[in-house]
Amino acid sequence: MNEIEKFNDYRSKMNEKILASDNKVIKRIFNLDTNAFSDGALTSKTKELIGLTCSMVLRCDDCVKYHLGKCFEQGLSDDEINEAFSIATLIGGTIVIPHLRRATEFWELLKESNV
Amino acid sequence: MNEIEKFNDYRSKMNEKILASDNKVIKRIFNLDTNAFSDGALTSKTKELIGLTCSMVLRCDDCVKYHLGKCFEQGLSDDEINEAFSIATLIGGTIVIPHLRRATEFWELLKESNV
Amino acid sequence: MNEIEKFNDYRSKMNEKILASDNKVIKRIFNLDTNAFSDGALTSKTKELIGLTCSMVLRCDDCVKYHLGKCFEQGLSDDEINEAFSIATLIGGTIVIPHLRRATEFWELLKESNV
Amino acid sequence: MNEIEKFNDYRSKMNEKILASDNKVIKRIFNLDTNAFSDGALTSKTKELIGLTCSMVLRCDDCVKYHLGKCFEQGLSDDEINEAFSIATLIGGTIVIPHLRRATEFWELLKESNV
Amino acid sequence: MNEIEKFNDYRSKMNEKILASDNKVIKRIFNLDTNAFSDGALTSKTKELIGLTCSMVLRCDDCVKYHLGKCFEQGLSDDEINEAFSIATLIGGTIVIPHLRRATEFWELLKESNV
Amino acid sequence: MNEIEKFNDYRSKMNEKILASDNKVIKRIFNLDTNAFSDGALTSKTKELIGLTCSMVLRCDDCVKYHLGKCFEQGLSDDEINEAFSIATLIGGTIVIPHLRRATEFWELLKESNV
Repeated sequence: MNEIEKFNDYRSKMNEKILASDNKVIKRIFNLDTNAFSDGALTSKTKELIGLTCSMVLRCDDCVKYHLGKCFEQGLSDDEINEAFSIATLIGGTIVIPHLRRATEFWELLKESNV
Repeated sequence: MNEIEKFNDYRSKMNEKILASDNKVIKRIFNLDTNAFSDGALTSKTKELIGLTCSMVLRCDDCVKYHLGKCFEQGLSDDEINEAFSIATLIGGTIVIPHLRRATEFWELLKESNV
Repeated sequence: MNEIEKFNDYRSKMNEKILASDNKVIKRIFNLDTNAFSDGALTSKTKELIGLTCSMVLRCDDCVKYHLGKCFEQGLSDDEINEAFSIATLIGGTIVIPHLRRATEFWELLKESNV
Repeated sequence: MNEIEKFNDYRSKMNEKILASDNKVIKRIFNLDTNAFSDGALTSKTKELIGLTCSMVLRCDDCVKYHLGKCFEQGLSDDEINEAFSIATLIGGTIVIPHLRRATEFWELLKESNV
Repeated sequence: MNEIEKFNDYRSKMNEKILASDNKVIKRIFNLDTNAFSDGALTSKTKELIGLTCSMVLRCDDCVKYHLGKCFEQGLSDDEINEAFSIATLIGGTIVIPHLRRATEFWELLKESNV
Repeated sequence: MNEIEKFNDYRSKMNEKILASDNKVIKRIFNLDTNAFSDGALTSKTKELIGLTCSMVLRCDDCVKYHLGKCFEQGLSDDEINEAFSIATLIGGTIVIPHLRRATEFWELLKESNV
């Protein structure tokens, strides 16, 4: 399994366990997560860019990876991703840079996985 | 002076004082802030939505107000703003809600100011 | 109107406006907020203490005030509140202290309002 | 060594080194940490739930693991832990979810280790 | 009373109330705060610069004001303060700028108060 | 390769890739990072202590490692580093302790690497 598969695999496995606990509040938060990013007044492409940049300024590597995967599915270009990266780094400061490194690495993996 | 004018006035006055200190690093960060949000691979409208939501999840009222002003200039609709608000609240959690209240109030002021 | 009434008044007024926007995601988050703190495996008293301390370490004054109000309704004693304050200050660090000051002030207001 | 032992082992080893530096401020913070969570006006069970949820909203995996270990010693049930998880995720937002996954995994390890 | 006196006054009044609660953990944290910033291997001047910049990146206005007052007592120059401001803004990102504005204003008040 | 070399290697490799994307905003932020920490009104030694402590309270392990490396080059003593650690832990709270453990470990590696 490559890094992307490992990431998705762990994510799915643990989501299943979390939802199996049958806690209503958690279940609804997971549901909302699906609804909030679908097309509406804003396109899901714009929403994924929002998800990506918010994850970067909050410095959550796994959230960044998840939204990078979604951005990749949405067909976002390198230039679009780099501009999103630049705004997040400017707003969040140089403390974001280690996450920018890992985000850049994961974005490359996504592109390679699709050759 | 209404709330919006007071906000802009204080912002301008203090920015001037900060830049008068002639600190190179700070001056360049202020310059970057202007460049980063102009049209590029992403539209400045999308970038302002990113600025707005990142400011919400980082819970900075003044930053939220600034980007709401820019979003208003970009002609964003209520529905677009509300969807941006909803994603920021979902990602950032209920701790964002007090900022959502003040953001909602400021958005209404912006709309009224323009009647 | 005293400080407590002003706080509750603004909160209610803006919640109404936010819910009037009819954004599904936001509405559900507001609903969850009510459900999550009701009695369950944990008592609502314990849950309010969790809400209070999480709000302190995340340094949100309005959230602290809200949960202090709820803690007061639950009949929590000064000693219980002070122990909760002390843990939040220890975990969150001295950066929490300005919020501890305002929390202490609001707790006193709540007690006076009830004489 | 399993995951729990590795975690505890590294923690003990490094705590020893930190305390060996003989820095008075750090030593006292470590002492406070022990005192703050013992029984008082609030039970240590309630305090561990506070420690757990504050660690989750501040998104510190090691702190979450430490308090999960303490919650396990206190005999907290799955339902109690899940309600604590749900409040932390609601307050802290979906950015907490990756930590919720790792917390869920560690909680399972704790239960298995005790069979 | 001017802004600086109001700030110091509220701070003293509430610290007194907090310490009156006689909570051991809180009392010790307050004590540590005094010890940690006195001369040692690092000068108290360097320590106040650390306190100032940590307060800025954590975006706590009151903490910034407190450490600015201490930096003023230590005789720090405008250039030294501006360099500290610039590093904090670079590390913490543009989200720090609203706090930089208020810090700049308070620093000017401190200088005027001393004419 | 030891831990320090691995850390520096990954850092360099990814910085190169990030800068190869030729995004003007990101390039300038990277440039600023070099300028901001050079000698000025404050010595670069003081600036590295600021960089170290800000990284600790913001809880970024990679940033802590980077600034520890710089502090080591500046010839900072154990006592100076421990006082910086103690202030960061006091300001940022016990949530900083897991990062303090890893910082202590990396500081030891730096000292061993230089024997």
